[in-house]
Amino acid sequence: MSVLVAITGRDNTKLIAKMQSQLPNIRIEQLDDCQDFAGVEFVLAWNAPTSLWQKLPNLKAVSSFGAGVDSIDLSLLPKDVEIVRIVDEQLATDMAEYVLTHVLAQKLRLKEYYIKQQQSEWKPKRAYKYNQVSMLGFGELGRASAHSLVSNGFKVNAWSRTPKKSTIATLYHGDEGLTDMLAQTDYLVCLLPLTSSTEEIINKQLLEQLPEHAVIINVARGEHIVEADLLDALNNQRLRGATLDVFASEPLPSEHPYWLHPGITLTPHCAALSDLDSVIKQIADNILRLKAGEPLINCINKQQGY
Amino acid sequence: MSVLVAITGRDNTKLIAKMQSQLPNIRIEQLDDCQDFAGVEFVLAWNAPTSLWQKLPNLKAVSSFGAGVDSIDLSLLPKDVEIVRIVDEQLATDMAEYVLTHVLAQKLRLKEYYIKQQQSEWKPKRAYKYNQVSMLGFGELGRASAHSLVSNGFKVNAWSRTPKKSTIATLYHGDEGLTDMLAQTDYLVCLLPLTSSTEEIINKQLLEQLPEHAVIINVARGEHIVEADLLDALNNQRLRGATLDVFASEPLPSEHPYWLHPGITLTPHCAALSDLDSVIKQIADNILRLKAGEPLINCINKQQGY
Repeated sequence: MSVLVAITGRDNTKLIAKMQSQLPNIRIEQLDDCQDFAGVEFVLAWNAPTSLWQKLPNLKAVSSFGAGVDSIDLSLLPKDVEIVRIVDEQLATDMAEYVLTHVLAQKLRLKEYYIKQQQSEWKPKRAYKYNQVSMLGFGELGRASAHSLVSNGFKVNAWSRTPKKSTIATLYHGDEGLTDMLAQTDYLVCLLPLTSSTEEIINKQLLEQLPEHAVIINVARGEHIVEADLLDALNNQRLRGATLDVFASEPLPSEHPYWLHPGITLTPHCAALSDLDSVIKQIADNILRLKAGEPLINCINKQQGY
Repeated sequence: MSVLVAITGRDNTKLIAKMQSQLPNIRIEQLDDCQDFAGVEFVLAWNAPTSLWQKLPNLKAVSSFGAGVDSIDLSLLPKDVEIVRIVDEQLATDMAEYVLTHVLAQKLRLKEYYIKQQQSEWKPKRAYKYNQVSMLGFGELGRASAHSLVSNGFKVNAWSRTPKKSTIATLYHGDEGLTDMLAQTDYLVCLLPLTSSTEEIINKQLLEQLPEHAVIINVARGEHIVEADLLDALNNQRLRGATLDVFASEPLPSEHPYWLHPGITLTPHCAALSDLDSVIKQIADNILRLKAGEPLINCINKQQGY
């Protein structure tokens, strides 16, 4: 068997060297230099060209090079190919810290004071009392964030497509559940996987169901938001602010209206940066499992898409 | 007995009306209109003129209109006058939230990203790993902050003049203890009372004992810091940054170099704003205790000055 690294838009030299040192007896090929597509059984993929999949008659498993699998068009893959993703515990810890920090920053008006500081303007105001955080999505990252928020005095709601269980958050599911939750939301944190049913979920209709003092925090994917609808809500004071870490196009183009919008706090997709060594360890583990005929870890449900 | 409100630089109309409604049978006078200084037994003071105290032959107690008593020159008061201060539990909660938020904001580089946003610059960086917070001062506010920091994964050190006890923080005291603590400090939070021995405690000598990546967070009094020494340390990269909520002169003059300094995050003395109703309840309680000959609450130790 051989492994193919099909990650585009990134220099993979270091990644492949590290993988090879962990897997000395496995042949690891790069997309551009691949000599033997028929020998490939495992692909590590991120934004791989859609034409790739039909060239791989012996493909058995694809690992996404990230927590989401939205960079892989699952409809192009044979049904018996396993799809796995990265589950990095440090990612959940970092994400929870980012979410807590930015909810607190919105509560304590950090960006407002930062703007006032530049204008040498002294204008003390009380922090907002708002303390209800609603999460769209309640997977590993959502649960870790909920724990941290609850232990810091926030009330946490969470919405997921299918019913889930939790002792710390009030749970909602389905369309009706979403409407109920939005009405009691001070901070809406998006941590959904990107699928056809969650794409553009933060649109005019959703935004209109939020209180005017609400804040959006998006740490999932840029495509969850209809940009024009978000800007419209901010510009018409139907929303207090937004903290955005992810964008449909990254790096965010320098002429994009998000950059200079006073209601937007922007960070450059840094909420949870994978540690390369721990990611490689997990990928190598799955490659060895495949070789040994053992079940893979962190498989997704292909019908759900996450 | 009568009560005198001697708070300068502030409109006290609402305060006095609220006090009067809580204390319908007590005469409450304003400094400017006071007819009978000899009848005054209780003064509520903030930046009262120093000439006031010798006019009050029957003074029994002075309440500061704040958590600190540094606005009152204790040397001018007879020894048997009790000095009390405001101890507002909400203040401790708000202060702990401010300290946690701004430690996290420094850890996750929020100001750095704000600046990059204004420049439309996409430059992801990992959050700092630094997680040791050292507190100067370990009273109610310090303890509340330490609890919150520890429950969010920080290691907390605390320094006080006299030895104290704690199960959550590593404690230091005295000059030698201060030196030991500074060497292992990533974030130095000042929550000291302002006394002659703590004034200008954050000076060149102290700053030189901190690691270069350290950050100062001052939520006590502006006078704790030697401004020129702080600016010098920041300008020479011997300190990573400072979050300042308090200043020797407030509002901070618009030409002050703090305003536009990229290493300084400035907030307008808003870390813990007293809720007027809960403050008045506490003052009224002490006035009624004095009238009934009962011991007052929240007395300070006049020799320590806090």
